[in-house]
Amino acid sequence: MKKKKKKVNAAILIIGNEILSGRTKDQNVNFICKWLNSNCGISVNEVRIIPDVEKDIISSIKILSKNFNYVFTTGGIGPTHDDITANSIAKAFKVKYEYHKEAFKILENYYGKKNFNDGRKKMAKMPKGSKLVINPSSAAPGFIIKNVICLPGVPSILNSMIDNTKKYLQKGSKTLSKTINIFSVESNISKELEKIQFLFKKDVEIGSYPFFRLGKIGVSIVSRSKSQSQLVKVEKKLKEMVKKKGIKVLKLN
Amino acid sequence: MKKKKKKVNAAILIIGNEILSGRTKDQNVNFICKWLNSNCGISVNEVRIIPDVEKDIISSIKILSKNFNYVFTTGGIGPTHDDITANSIAKAFKVKYEYHKEAFKILENYYGKKNFNDGRKKMAKMPKGSKLVINPSSAAPGFIIKNVICLPGVPSILNSMIDNTKKYLQKGSKTLSKTINIFSVESNISKELEKIQFLFKKDVEIGSYPFFRLGKIGVSIVSRSKSQSQLVKVEKKLKEMVKKKGIKVLKLN
Repeated sequence: MKKKKKKVNAAILIIGNEILSGRTKDQNVNFICKWLNSNCGISVNEVRIIPDVEKDIISSIKILSKNFNYVFTTGGIGPTHDDITANSIAKAFKVKYEYHKEAFKILENYYGKKNFNDGRKKMAKMPKGSKLVINPSSAAPGFIIKNVICLPGVPSILNSMIDNTKKYLQKGSKTLSKTINIFSVESNISKELEKIQFLFKKDVEIGSYPFFRLGKIGVSIVSRSKSQSQLVKVEKKLKEMVKKKGIKVLKLN
Repeated sequence: MKKKKKKVNAAILIIGNEILSGRTKDQNVNFICKWLNSNCGISVNEVRIIPDVEKDIISSIKILSKNFNYVFTTGGIGPTHDDITANSIAKAFKVKYEYHKEAFKILENYYGKKNFNDGRKKMAKMPKGSKLVINPSSAAPGFIIKNVICLPGVPSILNSMIDNTKKYLQKGSKTLSKTINIFSVESNISKELEKIQFLFKKDVEIGSYPFFRLGKIGVSIVSRSKSQSQLVKVEKKLKEMVKKKGIKVLKLN
């Protein structure tokens, strides 16, 4: 009997006015999407970017935590007045927002008793029942409550701590991909591509993406699947199609 | 009497498996957010990134077009099987999905009658009642139907045509911003910042963002408002606070 491929999914919730105003370019979505697939076999199926507004955070958390296996949030867990993620999530799950003993100790040790002011103490406040995501670069921990994992917005700090979320995550089977880059235009292959997609619609998802490289127009045909053997079959079909049409292939990967 | 500042908002819907898989880094969100504010005084209040799945597109369009003045979509309007945005939006609004006469002519002229194949013809199919967003770089037009504006996913093409959406948009008043960069940490100013935010909570939104520059740690304090005079008042308060605390300011902007 074939081993069943397990699908585990996630959503990402980016919390931050600075992304929506255009001041800051988000760098976390791409990083988390790649990390989750390659390290945990988890597919990201939706991303939302919302402002630092309590009611928006609460409603997004409620719906995303219901619809997906995991929700990763970034942003809003620092010491200032606009950091309202932890409190809003406590409200979404109707649990207390209170000092997490271990987080309090970590931060007190890090800053020293004398310098452990109210702003810093705030970073130890979390929804009751949270477990910590240890932060090796700037001490203030992230946390997980139910299926929601809260990480900071600063990319370098987020990147340094994401491995510490792994122990809380159920693993799925990785999505594999194969890419063929061809010198052609999409409309030249769209009919054939549709036929191949139809044949493999159960297991493989084929995407077509135009590119411009060194003054030439091309198309990347990307096949994605949990099954390596199905991917190989699709690649064969695609290569046959390309050859039949006399299209030049760009060897890159 | 004071002139009332008009608030016009928008959501962005990024449609594309390639963004969620991490293969492609989105570049359109930041561009559209900045363009809408500086050219039209429109604030982006939410972004969603979803896969090329019909039911997801339909449900997102329904809710976002109801909740925001405008919805900008990117992606899924090309000639291949995975380009399902136009058809899905027709379904969301319960209108026919059919050839747009003008779009058909534009594309027929561009490709020539002989080369105008089915894939290319598909790019002239739109929800009934759509108006065109002219595409000066690769011919295939975007469109607007009700309050939803559909643009392609390729950033260079999107950038070339976004000015052509302007005539369809009601203008709002621009959000202005002022930034003070200081060499300090957030927890050192969080209490004072909260007080200043409280004083101006009606008109100004103050955000605080840590930065690392040339090996030094700092904070960017960003104030945003539709009112220039209120911004100036906040800046004065912030500068007083910084001076009182003996914090060094980094002169950049």
